Amino acid sequence: MSKNEKEEHLAIGVDLGGTNIRVALMNKMGQILQEGSRLTEAYKSRDYIIQNMIKMINTVKGDYQIKGIGVGSPGPINQAEGRILDPPNLKSLHQCPIVEMLQSEFRDIPIYLENDANVAALAEARVGAGAGKKSVIYITVSTGIGAGIVIDGKLFVGAQGNAGEIGNMIISEKGPQVANLNTGALEALASGTAIERVGRERLGIDGGAKEVFALAMAGDSVALKIVEEVKTYLSIGIANLMHLLNPSIFVIGGGVMQSGEWLLPQLREKTSHLLFPSMRSHLMIEPPMLDHKVGVIGAGLLVFT
Amino acid sequence: MSKNEKEEHLAIGVDLGGTNIRVALMNKMGQILQEGSRLTEAYKSRDYIIQNMIKMINTVKGDYQIKGIGVGSPGPINQAEGRILDPPNLKSLHQCPIVEMLQSEFRDIPIYLENDANVAALAEARVGAGAGKKSVIYITVSTGIGAGIVIDGKLFVGAQGNAGEIGNMIISEKGPQVANLNTGALEALASGTAIERVGRERLGIDGGAKEVFALAMAGDSVALKIVEEVKTYLSIGIANLMHLLNPSIFVIGGGVMQSGEWLLPQLREKTSHLLFPSMRSHLMIEPPMLDHKVGVIGAGLLVFT
Repeated sequence: MSKNEKEEHLAIGVDLGGTNIRVALMNKMGQILQEGSRLTEAYKSRDYIIQNMIKMINTVKGDYQIKGIGVGSPGPINQAEGRILDPPNLKSLHQCPIVEMLQSEFRDIPIYLENDANVAALAEARVGAGAGKKSVIYITVSTGIGAGIVIDGKLFVGAQGNAGEIGNMIISEKGPQVANLNTGALEALASGTAIERVGRERLGIDGGAKEVFALAMAGDSVALKIVEEVKTYLSIGIANLMHLLNPSIFVIGGGVMQSGEWLLPQLREKTSHLLFPSMRSHLMIEPPMLDHKVGVIGAGLLVFT
Repeated sequence: MSKNEKEEHLAIGVDLGGTNIRVALMNKMGQILQEGSRLTEAYKSRDYIIQNMIKMINTVKGDYQIKGIGVGSPGPINQAEGRILDPPNLKSLHQCPIVEMLQSEFRDIPIYLENDANVAALAEARVGAGAGKKSVIYITVSTGIGAGIVIDGKLFVGAQGNAGEIGNMIISEKGPQVANLNTGALEALASGTAIERVGRERLGIDGGAKEVFALAMAGDSVALKIVEEVKTYLSIGIANLMHLLNPSIFVIGGGVMQSGEWLLPQLREKTSHLLFPSMRSHLMIEPPMLDHKVGVIGAGLLVFT
């Protein structure tokens, strides 16, 4: 492989998480050539964290020429300014001008920044469960609920970069009061946090979705009712998106989905009943195909527009 | 202007409505050179209606060379087959293969078919209130509620062409039972039909949105409460779309909006309160700029992709 070929075909992805930083050298198919991972140590200083990241990038880069560096960060971010805003799990990096900081180290290499949900959506859409599909909506049901929209292989982020904030979509006139969310918002009703809260209130347990689901599997009627409600709320959310965007495929992942693998087929069934009849046979809901490396792969794919 | 120039720059738009057929010869700026209009006479036969349409097209076409013919029809349509499916107001044209029928008359001229809501969205996005904006959502609040999504000047219609069906978006766990719509669907709660039904139930009037709004203006407390509810439902619908797609601008038209011009500024206010704070200053809601010719202009614009 000549140096020019390498430069055209390789990128570095950085998955900046609240717990781990992952870095990988990869090609546009999402195949990883070199990788590294370490604890973020999010309680330490901004400079400490960014310097570690730079070292990791240099390690996987070695002598390779690369086309660019893509960074996936917890949101919110300001993409135009290349800045991390105020993600709750990364207090040391609030207002961090991460693109500028990386740029001063990697002078001639384009740097891309995107929020982690969009980065995961891009990876699943291009080289995961949505590969080959024209329009993909990737939904994470985890602590929160978010979505990434990929049309013709490109992220659709909207006018100010905030598209996909489905957690704040109102699906009910009532619901618990949750800070920063609308009454009746999807995330307040069906996220991991919501399930944990309801589990505490109605079952007196602290284990969150995993434990609620286990009790439901064991036949506990209160837990079963909670599961039914969560399925209803999630189905409404997905049906709303289907009516609005009619995507080729939904890819639905996140911790809550992993806690109950039976959940996805039941969601398919329930969502289908909420669609216009002519749309039902076209509903595709699949689990993600990429594992914990989805973030670092998607970050690298940002480089290949 | 040479013949070649003409061919590149002119198109014919056909607005097939339940009441009128409008036809226009126009350029890609939506400027009309020739136009015609007549009653659809929807109760007459398929052949009668289509033959009239062909005559109208030939009249505005004259000797001009045209790049294509675009047709806007009430939905649902099957775009791949160029067929009108089963729009309630056009019974004679159910299952009509309109593209094939026009093609056999206009042999070498490309024919385009799109539903009327999308056609109006395209017109407002390209040459109306959304001109120059990257992403436009056009919403009609009329007998029903529908939306058209235009990204970078192009309609986004989704995998099977059904994107924009926001009337069936669930925003409440309760709501009246309406045929073909989900319980709690936006259209069942806030369309002209919904307002008419509530006006009948609570006020004993048959005049629909116009009369309900007039009574509210006159201070009738029941009518005022209905208006408040409608505003709430519509705001929820718009806020959901803003969180999901973050468009540059919303253009909101249709009979209900025309019945109360004070409605739009109040919707802006109310929707804003339902958004993440960082998104509020970016919310743009504007009325349409094009008048009753929006359909024929949008149909012609289908030709210029």
